[in-house]
Amino acid sequence: MRRIALLLISVAAVAGAIAFLAPRAGRADQEIYVTQIPAGYRDWKLVSVAHEEGNLNDLRAILGNDVAVKAYREGKLPFPDGAVIARIAWAYVPSEENNKVFGRDQSFVPGPPTDWYLQFMVKDSRKYAATGGWGYAQFDKDGKPAPEAKLKTCYPCHEPIKARDYLFTRYTP
Amino acid sequence: MRRIALLLISVAAVAGAIAFLAPRAGRADQEIYVTQIPAGYRDWKLVSVAHEEGNLNDLRAILGNDVAVKAYREGKLPFPDGAVIARIAWAYVPSEENNKVFGRDQSFVPGPPTDWYLQFMVKDSRKYAATGGWGYAQFDKDGKPAPEAKLKTCYPCHEPIKARDYLFTRYTP
Repeated sequence: MRRIALLLISVAAVAGAIAFLAPRAGRADQEIYVTQIPAGYRDWKLVSVAHEEGNLNDLRAILGNDVAVKAYREGKLPFPDGAVIARIAWAYVPSEENNKVFGRDQSFVPGPPTDWYLQFMVKDSRKYAATGGWGYAQFDKDGKPAPEAKLKTCYPCHEPIKARDYLFTRYTP
Repeated sequence: MRRIALLLISVAAVAGAIAFLAPRAGRADQEIYVTQIPAGYRDWKLVSVAHEEGNLNDLRAILGNDVAVKAYREGKLPFPDGAVIARIAWAYVPSEENNKVFGRDQSFVPGPPTDWYLQFMVKDSRKYAATGGWGYAQFDKDGKPAPEAKLKTCYPCHEPIKARDYLFTRYTP
């Protein structure tokens, strides 16, 4: 955890330096990314679950902080500032111990963390105005943030679902 | 909700009458089932997720109340009294809207509730002594409890994993 904290501080320092050195003009159009893992996300309420095939081949849980879950449950769009969505993804693996009990191959469970284990969307309509009001983040299992080139792919993929405030995941009651 | 509440009250009343009329001898060996949906379960913390193929063909989330999640995180076995595990299962369906954005068939999401939408395990080592200290429950999407014949199948299936206190699901960090 200490190494992660130090890493995050370094990343924040570099990001701060870049922001300071960057020309002021045109900043509103620049994409800004989330560089810290939101505290306590593993205790948040469940929004939904999913299985992605193909390259991803994962089992995933989507959690939301209280602001996000309230907005989901009330069907409120766009989501208010302060809403944060977490996506945790694990490798999709068969459960040998479950299958032994069932007597057939039927059970798939979370394996190790995937390459980009954690993703977050943080709503701040001013700060992240250039990307639909959401800041995007990806971290590996060690808490290392994804490189900027990777983060640049988030918003273009979410853009087609602007009508649902850029959220792929629907709340599952 | 009112209909569910009335139904649950009726079920509880019938169960009470049966308990009153039943002979006292041998009761410790009888299986006892949970007949009420534990309040607030949808707000509980995430334990894990899974996909079951075959007849079940579902996507499922496993949640736990605070006592259960604490025991899971501490690796404490057997679980203390008061622990409650919830299993919510939805039909496993492809997400056409997600696949359209991805440009390929890869996304599977929760569909409608399954036949036995909700399952619970409630730890009370005295009350449920006959079934390893856990009381079992199943409810359909309308909150109707499963018939006794169906509930009788819970414990025999969980019995092979006695070493893990009868819990199939492992906590996924």
